[in-house]
Amino acid sequence: LSDALLIALDAMGGDYAPQEIVRGAIRFVLSDHPDATGVEVALVGDPEAISTCLKAEGFEASSRLSLISATEVIAMDEHPLEAIKKKPDSSIGVCAKLVKEGRAQATLSAGNTGACLVAGVMLIGRLPQISRPPIATYIPRQGGGATLIVDAGANVDCQPSHLADFALLGSLYMQEVAGIARPRVALLSNGEEDAKGDELVKRSRSLLQELGLNFTGNIEGNTLFEDHADVVVCDGFAGNVLLKTAEGMAGLCLSLLEDVPEVQRRVRERVDWAECGGAPLLGIDGVSVIAHGRSNARAIETALQITARAARSGYVEAARTALEGRSA
Amino acid sequence: LSDALLIALDAMGGDYAPQEIVRGAIRFVLSDHPDATGVEVALVGDPEAISTCLKAEGFEASSRLSLISATEVIAMDEHPLEAIKKKPDSSIGVCAKLVKEGRAQATLSAGNTGACLVAGVMLIGRLPQISRPPIATYIPRQGGGATLIVDAGANVDCQPSHLADFALLGSLYMQEVAGIARPRVALLSNGEEDAKGDELVKRSRSLLQELGLNFTGNIEGNTLFEDHADVVVCDGFAGNVLLKTAEGMAGLCLSLLEDVPEVQRRVRERVDWAECGGAPLLGIDGVSVIAHGRSNARAIETALQITARAARSGYVEAARTALEGRSA
Repeated sequence: LSDALLIALDAMGGDYAPQEIVRGAIRFVLSDHPDATGVEVALVGDPEAISTCLKAEGFEASSRLSLISATEVIAMDEHPLEAIKKKPDSSIGVCAKLVKEGRAQATLSAGNTGACLVAGVMLIGRLPQISRPPIATYIPRQGGGATLIVDAGANVDCQPSHLADFALLGSLYMQEVAGIARPRVALLSNGEEDAKGDELVKRSRSLLQELGLNFTGNIEGNTLFEDHADVVVCDGFAGNVLLKTAEGMAGLCLSLLEDVPEVQRRVRERVDWAECGGAPLLGIDGVSVIAHGRSNARAIETALQITARAARSGYVEAARTALEGRSA
Repeated sequence: LSDALLIALDAMGGDYAPQEIVRGAIRFVLSDHPDATGVEVALVGDPEAISTCLKAEGFEASSRLSLISATEVIAMDEHPLEAIKKKPDSSIGVCAKLVKEGRAQATLSAGNTGACLVAGVMLIGRLPQISRPPIATYIPRQGGGATLIVDAGANVDCQPSHLADFALLGSLYMQEVAGIARPRVALLSNGEEDAKGDELVKRSRSLLQELGLNFTGNIEGNTLFEDHADVVVCDGFAGNVLLKTAEGMAGLCLSLLEDVPEVQRRVRERVDWAECGGAPLLGIDGVSVIAHGRSNARAIETALQITARAARSGYVEAARTALEGRSA
């Protein structure tokens, strides 16, 4: 069974945990989606709570959907670093350790994003030469397809070398996971012209040009949702502004469609991506995907597919090789 | 005629100049909109080109719609500072000088934004204690109303003192022009919690708290389009990312409504604000409003209303008084 893959799923994280998380896992293992084939899920958390949820769905733990105990839970508003240190048996922490020990090939959580990040860095560990692992998030494009934003919010106050790392990691991810031979990498700026940008962007440009990637120059927010780039690189503060503003504007548009529910549903499916996807943590030595805190069963099912695809792709190995080959 | 007001309108600026600019001015002076009452417009630019446009519309220059010659034009892609220096008789420059000399009470241009900014700073002049005048732009809100974003893109690499100036100027603008007694001022960040932010945001928070404004704390992109703040303060790089991303997401939503043209039109009216409004340049000693480069006649008409309202409000005098009273 060379294809066998175990995903450690944090059953306790997210606004609708554990019910919706467990239901999402059930949907995933019962589906005939190609990304679900041969994938096992371990529900990590309070065994009693998880069993109750499984029972409510008429389901029993099996090899496809097993149960691993974690006695502590990190709340959404806890301080990430303190929580990971103080709660060694938290569901997020246990998931990360399962990946570190090779008992699971990937982990997924809809819980405290900062704690997932800290667990990834401290418990799974960083890839060589990566000082600040970024979070990557897809945004939808006109005409279909998606663009990866790196960093989506993990690191503020970045240096040019960090943005260069984000570019390399994002490009490798799109190459290995999305199968794009030479992903187009663009730099988020306040104008497309070469001279545009703040100090960070200007100093990062030359570094990005030297990486041997398919670097296409600056990109501005108004063309982000068209087919111009596969990876958009930015500081985590700008990445957060970008993603949250897009979410806010999508909300405004959807609010204007309330009297045409069928149209609203169709638009929502394309623009409400934030709540039904998964954001991989790049630059750590394993696969860790973060889902939206408001994830329902369907969102968890989709995020499990993304997690499985990332784990199968071997992008972590590709990144490790690329980074080890890079002069320090 | 204490209400008499002259707006110097750059007839040569924008993608559809001079035709659409002239048509917008005609629509404005012929309308019975309250903001147009008693307002005169001077079309500034190449007299021959403007006369041809007026004639094509069956219109003649009059006291309501006069003509002032400017022999040079600054192109959209010219370097702003160099262009203002090299072309002393540019339409943007002549408009600014008319304001400086008190011959016009306000100016409006859909031309090179950077050149408008430089003309405002160098030819009209800054208000006391303001080192970096910001551009302010409205974004639409769910349920109606609008929020002012300051800085919309004039200044990158800001210091906390600049953000404090943006807060003060934005608050005064909303007070005097929009008639809001105590405008709610929020700081754009990557989370609502007090501890969130990059270095600039964290260092600016305490300054903003000490200004005596109605400061409400951090705001995140996803709630920008709801009724939480009247003024949102940010560095010009983040402001550009915010506004352009919102424009891009609105474009994606509109593209998904192509098969329901009536719905699309209705949504466009609310979210396509970028192309039909005006962005005032704050912190200079006069009223200067910048319109979108793609402005058509309707957009110019709307922008002229905004310009007239700003000139009538006396916010420049209010800002001068507030700044003179502030300890240096």
